Amino acid sequence: MNSDRSSSSINRRVLISGMALLPAFSGMPVTGIAQTQTTQDGSLRSWNDGPAKQAIVDFVGATTDQASPKFVPPEERIATFDQDGTLWVEHPIYTQVVYCLDRVPAVVEKDPKLKNVEPFKTVLSGNREAIAKLSLPDLEKILVATLTGMSVDEFNAEAKKWLTTAKDPRWKRPYTDLIYQPMLEVMQYLRGNGFKTYIVTGGGQDFVRVYSQRVYGIPPEQVVGTAGGTKFGYQKDGKPFLTKEPKLLLNDDKAGKPEGIHLMIGRRPYAAFGNSDGDRQMLEYTGAGDGTRLKMLVLHDDAKREYAYGPAQGLPASKVGTFTQALYDEAKKKAWTVISMKNDWKRIFAFEQNA
Amino acid sequence: MNSDRSSSSINRRVLISGMALLPAFSGMPVTGIAQTQTTQDGSLRSWNDGPAKQAIVDFVGATTDQASPKFVPPEERIATFDQDGTLWVEHPIYTQVVYCLDRVPAVVEKDPKLKNVEPFKTVLSGNREAIAKLSLPDLEKILVATLTGMSVDEFNAEAKKWLTTAKDPRWKRPYTDLIYQPMLEVMQYLRGNGFKTYIVTGGGQDFVRVYSQRVYGIPPEQVVGTAGGTKFGYQKDGKPFLTKEPKLLLNDDKAGKPEGIHLMIGRRPYAAFGNSDGDRQMLEYTGAGDGTRLKMLVLHDDAKREYAYGPAQGLPASKVGTFTQALYDEAKKKAWTVISMKNDWKRIFAFEQNA
Repeated sequence: MNSDRSSSSINRRVLISGMALLPAFSGMPVTGIAQTQTTQDGSLRSWNDGPAKQAIVDFVGATTDQASPKFVPPEERIATFDQDGTLWVEHPIYTQVVYCLDRVPAVVEKDPKLKNVEPFKTVLSGNREAIAKLSLPDLEKILVATLTGMSVDEFNAEAKKWLTTAKDPRWKRPYTDLIYQPMLEVMQYLRGNGFKTYIVTGGGQDFVRVYSQRVYGIPPEQVVGTAGGTKFGYQKDGKPFLTKEPKLLLNDDKAGKPEGIHLMIGRRPYAAFGNSDGDRQMLEYTGAGDGTRLKMLVLHDDAKREYAYGPAQGLPASKVGTFTQALYDEAKKKAWTVISMKNDWKRIFAFEQNA
Repeated sequence: MNSDRSSSSINRRVLISGMALLPAFSGMPVTGIAQTQTTQDGSLRSWNDGPAKQAIVDFVGATTDQASPKFVPPEERIATFDQDGTLWVEHPIYTQVVYCLDRVPAVVEKDPKLKNVEPFKTVLSGNREAIAKLSLPDLEKILVATLTGMSVDEFNAEAKKWLTTAKDPRWKRPYTDLIYQPMLEVMQYLRGNGFKTYIVTGGGQDFVRVYSQRVYGIPPEQVVGTAGGTKFGYQKDGKPFLTKEPKLLLNDDKAGKPEGIHLMIGRRPYAAFGNSDGDRQMLEYTGAGDGTRLKMLVLHDDAKREYAYGPAQGLPASKVGTFTQALYDEAKKKAWTVISMKNDWKRIFAFEQNA
């Protein structure tokens, strides 16, 4: 693969979803303990009482109580979070793909002969329908051209600048405003109880690291993502620098997630959060450990406040992260907790009025 | 490369050094501030007063004083340490190579046809001279056979068991006793001042992670090393597990060190410690950052208490980590601090009598 992502990863990352936003599925199964406890400090204030909130509170209670047989020593408290669709909006287009498309004019300006070369020509045309139909190899060319070939410092500066100016067309806000407030609260709650929180994303590791500290309170070294190699070299003045290379080191999706967790963390998580088939192996790996482990999946069933998509709701698959019926069945069988955005979350975004 | 290490890495890892243990070089250059400060809490108690200790104390003072123009916010305080020859004894054989050789009988027992196949036959013979002459491709075969093909859990259990039983022939102690006490104190001192300490080693990441918490107080997720891929799969009972694959992902030596730091940490260190040409690029990369950065090299000049080797002392090169004259010259030119084991360290190991 000569891309920052593999084609299996890109497969999930097409540009425009053709999905109709049908009414949301509302028949959430009710599992868990009937009597709902609450956190005493209001840590999970954007969560409705229910089995999902209960599962989080019970897990933290059991793993941090020294008298509990499920107690976990602080240094082993690792929690991993998928990003796209789990921590922020992924539908209808992955934010990083928007970044790459937006970078095409700058790439062409630097190398004008690309102007009449596909797929750059199509992207420059602005024809959304044609862009949506770009093939996977074409998409890869765009990712390689916009994510590699520059120094790490240049990439960081470009991505940072874009994040301050680009806006999501639906909410008319910076993409980093589209973080799910309830998930921020879970991360803070876990950190407050001695857990080290990691992002484990199919998205680009370098991209997410640009904003992870500011947005999630997660430092760059706790972001595991799809990663390309870099090449050490020297500027003319002798100063060393790293260049981003079109060489895939880690395809951090599906089986690549537990593999990436082993490479970058070296411990099995005690808690894992996802929202799609790309997270299945991470949750399985987490669940295979001893003691108590928290496995949670976010279900996009709120067409009004966010989106509703995926066969698990009887809806057509989205072209982004897909929560299939098979994943839903596995979650049910293994007693993983499914989070209903519609029922479990009082509010979705920090900028909303309080519920 | 189909090995846990590349051949350039293996190149440093030959078995028996032919080096004569000549009298140590004693003409250490005296640099730095004349008036030596000391840490008030005795953190660096195994260090003699001198330019090396002074450099550490000055660096911590400047980077942690909010009033200093060189102040570094706590979240950016990253310090990286090479392992072999910097944190523990590497001469005459890298400890991990001893582990691999010791594992050969078990590998042959599992696959008896290897008994008469080279290089396994030679290793089984116990003929040290013949073992020392094994070629690099032969060594690679041994590394692949003993470090890959098993589950991560199996490997961890084997390595852990070996570390409790194997003993260094000179000191007749477990290898993990051969940690340099002054370096432990530096790590503790830095952590006590808000630094996150990392090991960045040419050795195997999985191997070092087995004992890093116990021995160095460094958790597995803060060990960056030469790393192979793993493969996610399922046991017959459906339980997922990871198998160590003979596929090199990161050759964490020379230019691979800054590349590995970017991959695994994503930040430039403020302090870096090494002892050989394999650490040169890590120190250069560290030094290229703004503000004040600490760059230190351990010089093995103490034949009596440990070993003395390397052209920087006018001695023949060791076959392990080589501190060449060129590195020594670069250190002098760039004002990196060279630590003389003989002059700067009151004691080498924790088990020694206090000086």
